[in-house]
Amino acid sequence: MDILKRAKALEGQGRSICHLEIGEPGAPPAPRVIEAVQRALPQPQGYTNAKGLTELREGLAAYYERQHGLSVDPDLIMATMGSSAGFILAFHAAFKPGARIAITRPGYPAYVNTLLGLGFGIAEIPVKAANGWHLTGADIAAAHARQPFDGLLFASPANPTGAALDRAGLADIVQTCARLGVTLISDEIYHGLDYRGPSVSALELTRDAIIINSFSKYYCMTGWRIGWMVLPEALIRRAEILQQNLFISAPTLSQIAATAALEERDYSEEQKASYAANRQVLTEGLRDIGFDLPASGDGAFYAYAGIGKFSNDSMQFCETMLEQAGVAATPGIDFDRTDGNGYVRFSYAGTRASIEQALERLQLFVRAGGP
Amino acid sequence: MDILKRAKALEGQGRSICHLEIGEPGAPPAPRVIEAVQRALPQPQGYTNAKGLTELREGLAAYYERQHGLSVDPDLIMATMGSSAGFILAFHAAFKPGARIAITRPGYPAYVNTLLGLGFGIAEIPVKAANGWHLTGADIAAAHARQPFDGLLFASPANPTGAALDRAGLADIVQTCARLGVTLISDEIYHGLDYRGPSVSALELTRDAIIINSFSKYYCMTGWRIGWMVLPEALIRRAEILQQNLFISAPTLSQIAATAALEERDYSEEQKASYAANRQVLTEGLRDIGFDLPASGDGAFYAYAGIGKFSNDSMQFCETMLEQAGVAATPGIDFDRTDGNGYVRFSYAGTRASIEQALERLQLFVRAGGP
Repeated sequence: MDILKRAKALEGQGRSICHLEIGEPGAPPAPRVIEAVQRALPQPQGYTNAKGLTELREGLAAYYERQHGLSVDPDLIMATMGSSAGFILAFHAAFKPGARIAITRPGYPAYVNTLLGLGFGIAEIPVKAANGWHLTGADIAAAHARQPFDGLLFASPANPTGAALDRAGLADIVQTCARLGVTLISDEIYHGLDYRGPSVSALELTRDAIIINSFSKYYCMTGWRIGWMVLPEALIRRAEILQQNLFISAPTLSQIAATAALEERDYSEEQKASYAANRQVLTEGLRDIGFDLPASGDGAFYAYAGIGKFSNDSMQFCETMLEQAGVAATPGIDFDRTDGNGYVRFSYAGTRASIEQALERLQLFVRAGGP
Repeated sequence: MDILKRAKALEGQGRSICHLEIGEPGAPPAPRVIEAVQRALPQPQGYTNAKGLTELREGLAAYYERQHGLSVDPDLIMATMGSSAGFILAFHAAFKPGARIAITRPGYPAYVNTLLGLGFGIAEIPVKAANGWHLTGADIAAAHARQPFDGLLFASPANPTGAALDRAGLADIVQTCARLGVTLISDEIYHGLDYRGPSVSALELTRDAIIINSFSKYYCMTGWRIGWMVLPEALIRRAEILQQNLFISAPTLSQIAATAALEERDYSEEQKASYAANRQVLTEGLRDIGFDLPASGDGAFYAYAGIGKFSNDSMQFCETMLEQAGVAATPGIDFDRTDGNGYVRFSYAGTRASIEQALERLQLFVRAGGP
C-alpha cells in the first residue's frame, strides 16, 4: 500500500509510472454486463435474500455443470460481498473462536491479517521456488506434525506466485486434509486464469471443502464486491444465518451484473489471452534483465521474481525502482515476512504497452547500477 | 425471516399480502443518483482506497457541517459495505476478543447475533414502553453495576421501537459512558427519519464515540450496501487496516451513488413526508383496533405495538395474522427474547395504500375473533 500511495504521489507531480503493483484487471466488465445493470438501475434495489438472487445461484450451478462437469445444488451456493466476506463467513461458520488455520508462505497478506484480526490463530506452511511454489500433501502433514491446525486456507492459482495445482496435486491436498481432520477452504478466486489447462475445483474432489470464488479477477469486477461460496451441507444453514446477521445480502446490482457475467466468458477469455501474452513478455524480459524466475507461474497474473542479484531488501528495492525507474511493483516482504526480502511481485494484469515500457525502464535502471 | 418466506410462498399461491414486515423503503434512490451511476458505468470500477472515494468523504464532511454544524476531518470518515461492515470493523477496532458489548432490549436482532457470531459477549439493557422505549444513563449505570461491559451499541432512532433521544437524552448517555469507561458505538442509520425534530448525532457531544451510518434508509439504498463510519482519531488507523484486510473497499458504484445522494436530500425529505403520513394513519388505526401503542415512535419507520389484548405469543399471532388476514409483520420475540411475545413490529416504509388495506384487514381479523 505504501508503494501504491507513493506511486500516486509521484504521478501527482507529473511523473510517468508503470503500474505493475496492482492486482486487478484494467478492463471493465463485458458490455452485456453493463447493459444488464443499465436495465435494472431505475428499479429500487432492495436487499436480496441472504443467499442471493436465485438466478445468480442457478447460473453458478450451470457454470459448475458446464465448466467442471459437476452437479451442484444452488441451495449450497451463497453470493457474498466479494471473496472478502466469503472468508469471514467461512472462518466463523467452520471454526470456533481461536481455532488455528494454516496458510502458505508466501501468500495473500490479507489471509494472515484477517485471521488474526478476527481472533483466529495461524500456522504458516512454507512453499519453495524449487518446487514451483506448489503446496503438497507432505508439506501439510509436516507442518501439522510440528503444530496442529484446524483448517487450511489455500489458493490455486495463488497470489503472489501464480502457482496452480493440477488434479493430482489438488487430490493430494484434499486427501491429506481429510486424513488429518483439517477443514479445507479452497480459494478459487483466480479460477479461469490458468495458462496450463482448465482450473480444477476442489469441488471435483470433495464436498467437504468450503469453496470461495469471486467475479473480481476473471470477470473484471473488483470494485463491484461480488463473490460466492459453495458450502458443505453441514455448514450451509449456519453460513446463511451468519450472512443474514453480518452482511444481510451482497450488493443487489452487483448480483445482477454477476448473473450476466456468467454468460460472457468469451469476453473473459479475450482478457485472459492478453494476460497470457503479457505473461510471456514479462517473464522473458525479467529473466533477461537478471531477475530469478525459474517458473513462469501457472496462473493468475503475477510474476514472483527473485531479486538476489540486486538486493536483499525487497522494500528498499521497490522504493528505489519506483523513484529511479518509475516502475511500481510489490515487495515480497508483504507476502512472506520470513523470506520475502528476496522477491518482488510484478502484476501483468495491465496493458502490454505498460509492461514493455516497464521492462525498458528496468533494463536501464539495472544497467545504471540498480538500487 | 420465517414470516417473510411464508408471505412470499402465499403470494406464490396467488394470495394478496400487505407487507408491513419489511424494514426498507419501497422507493428507488433519487433520479440524479441513478444518472450519476449511469455516467460511471462504462468505466472500469476498480477497488477504491480502503477509506473510500475522497469525493464521498468530503461530501460527508460537508453533510456534518450543514446538518449538524460540525467540522469533521474527512480522514476520520470511512465508507463501508453497509452499516453491516461498519459494525464488524467497529467491534474489532475498538475491542479485544471476548469483550462484552451492551445493547438495548428490544433491539435490532443482528446486533446480538453479530456480536455472538464474532466471539464477543453481550449485556442486555431493558428499555420500557412506559418510558417511550428511551434508554437513559441511569439504565446504563444500573446494568453496568449488575454486570460490567466494555462497549455500548445504541441506535437513535431505534429499531424496532422508533424511540429517538433528544440532545439532553443523548448527552446523558454520552456522559454516562464516559464516566464508566464504556466505548460508545452510535448507530445513526435512521438519522434523517426523526419526526419530532432534527436528528442529534453523538458527534455533536463527543469525539470519542464510533459513529455508524448508512445510505440504506434515508436515501433509499438498502441493496446498494453502502454506509460510513466516523472514527475517533485513536482508532482510525486500526480501522483502516482492518478494512483493507477484511473488505478491501466498499462497492465503487455504490460510493459514486452515495456521493450523488448527499446532494439529493430534498428527494429524501419527500420520502420522509410520506412515512410521516403513514405513521399517523398506522398508529391511529392500530390503536382503534385495540393494539397497545402509548407512544407513536419518534423516528425510523416502525410501530412496536402491544398485542396483550389478543395474544401472548407474538410468533403465533404473526403467523395467524398472515394466514387469515394476509398481513405480514414481525413478531416482537425477534427483537426481545424476554418480553417480545407481547409485541409486534409493523413497518410503515411502504405505500399509504398498503397500510390502509392492512388496517382494514386487521379490523376484520380482530372482529372475527382474532388469532
